[in-house]
Amino acid sequence: MTARFIVLYETPADLAAFDRHYRDIHLPLARTLPGLRRYTLGRDAVAVRGGEPYYLVAEWEWDTMEELRAAFASPEGRAAAADAARLQELTPMRSMLYKVDETLL
Amino acid sequence: MTARFIVLYETPADLAAFDRHYRDIHLPLARTLPGLRRYTLGRDAVAVRGGEPYYLVAEWEWDTMEELRAAFASPEGRAAAADAARLQELTPMRSMLYKVDETLL
Repeated sequence: MTARFIVLYETPADLAAFDRHYRDIHLPLARTLPGLRRYTLGRDAVAVRGGEPYYLVAEWEWDTMEELRAAFASPEGRAAAADAARLQELTPMRSMLYKVDETLL
Repeated sequence: MTARFIVLYETPADLAAFDRHYRDIHLPLARTLPGLRRYTLGRDAVAVRGGEPYYLVAEWEWDTMEELRAAFASPEGRAAAADAARLQELTPMRSMLYKVDETLL
């Protein structure tokens, strides 16, 4: 079982400011989250349906939802969340967490 | 390297009709795509930022972008795409493809 946190960023008005903040500040913070198993970043997406693609797709995975929630509640999680509020000033984002449901596969 | 196709479905007006179509028609079609390495489905997402969560997050992975594009161009890919048009009548979706960029990790 995997618990996933996905963050979908719209294209920022100031690409350079967003990229710099993401790379130099947000990523180093988020990488320290306790129990983090894996993360992936996707850029240069090509839209298939539904209009413009997201600018950046970030996915963060834990083994269980309990571990994900513990990571969010940790000091590292609170620091990353505070920084996410700053990222949200640079571009709209939509983020959510969910369990990867293997029973559906 | 991984090439990923992500499909983000908004909450359908008719949940039962969407779920039935997705499970009984779309999933069996999409599972046959040539070269498909892995897929995951996520439901019951909890929003963190940016408003309502998506109803369903589906991710489909190939080893390379070339294999992903070949799958889309195949008869199986065209059948799944035609069915995606039907799903889009049941709920708005946003889908895109991208390379998982390991150089960013």
